[in-house]
Amino acid sequence: MSSDLIGQLTEALCCLPGVGPKTAQRMVLHLLERDRDGGKRLSQVLADAMVRIGQCRQCRNLTEASVCEICASQRRDERVLCVVETPADLIAIEQTGHYQGLYFVLMGNLSPIDGVGPEELGIDLLQARCNAGVEEVILAVGSTVEGEATAHFISEMLATADVRVTRLAQGIPMGGELEYVDGGTLVHALEDRKPL
Amino acid sequence: MSSDLIGQLTEALCCLPGVGPKTAQRMVLHLLERDRDGGKRLSQVLADAMVRIGQCRQCRNLTEASVCEICASQRRDERVLCVVETPADLIAIEQTGHYQGLYFVLMGNLSPIDGVGPEELGIDLLQARCNAGVEEVILAVGSTVEGEATAHFISEMLATADVRVTRLAQGIPMGGELEYVDGGTLVHALEDRKPL
Repeated sequence: MSSDLIGQLTEALCCLPGVGPKTAQRMVLHLLERDRDGGKRLSQVLADAMVRIGQCRQCRNLTEASVCEICASQRRDERVLCVVETPADLIAIEQTGHYQGLYFVLMGNLSPIDGVGPEELGIDLLQARCNAGVEEVILAVGSTVEGEATAHFISEMLATADVRVTRLAQGIPMGGELEYVDGGTLVHALEDRKPL
Repeated sequence: MSSDLIGQLTEALCCLPGVGPKTAQRMVLHLLERDRDGGKRLSQVLADAMVRIGQCRQCRNLTEASVCEICASQRRDERVLCVVETPADLIAIEQTGHYQGLYFVLMGNLSPIDGVGPEELGIDLLQARCNAGVEEVILAVGSTVEGEATAHFISEMLATADVRVTRLAQGIPMGGELEYVDGGTLVHALEDRKPL
């Protein structure tokens, strides 16, 4: 690298997921040659975001406010609570435009090996919310070993509470050809078959 | 987007080449959930770089110093000057570790339609350097229409100067199979064939 600061910026950009030294170099040269204003704006918003964005105190989603937009909205159905693993999962569900209830973001899965227990996932907060007017908890966690374990733990915990606990349906994805669907999914699709 | 600041950061990241809304969202969530320190450092280095990095007054390469490392080095051969289009081209040649001379970065190609004339490419500065002890000018511009036009213009300009003007060799790339090499390249490779 011809310039120390250019080298530093290239290294700093490598903290972004999917960005290696070669991509970072292309980004640096692009910003310096063609879009300094964009780079300046990015640096400001980035500094601001890293400091100001925290978690919603109701649903643990990422937000710069103390209570996020969704929790603060008057239009959402407060009787349904959808439990997701990450903010990205929440965004995916929001983008369907089909869900009108509230969320609870675990920010991970139970993983005792990595030191992630019920406390890190805010299970206390989840339990408190379930005791305050929630009628249904949808466990929208991934269909992985960790996801299943987390779902099992939460459903056990809520067994005594007066809420209905549901899980996302498992089956054939839209546009999926049977030939390429894995066996486990096919078993679920067969077992949960619906009358036409 | 659940948070305004998150939306702003996602948009700001889209100024990076190859980054669309989906990739930007993944970057934002990664930084917020896992690497706030990396994000803070990136914002600082980025702000610094956008303001402090300018061009070397000898070779026009990007640098935060008034004269870049290569121009300032005592080890480089001042008699050879390699003319490249962009800093990325310079880096590519430097990475071969084979070239010991100095550089001149045009920062583009002649393109009257886009308002890029000899002045924008610093041709005056190039001419001044060629009159000051340079013995050979290597035109390492791309083999494109614009590159050829720029090379032609510079060689015409240097016709009266006491320098040897050369051009990068054209031929079959290493590891290239004849079957997949285009016709134009094959013609060059045949015409410039070398005795074994």
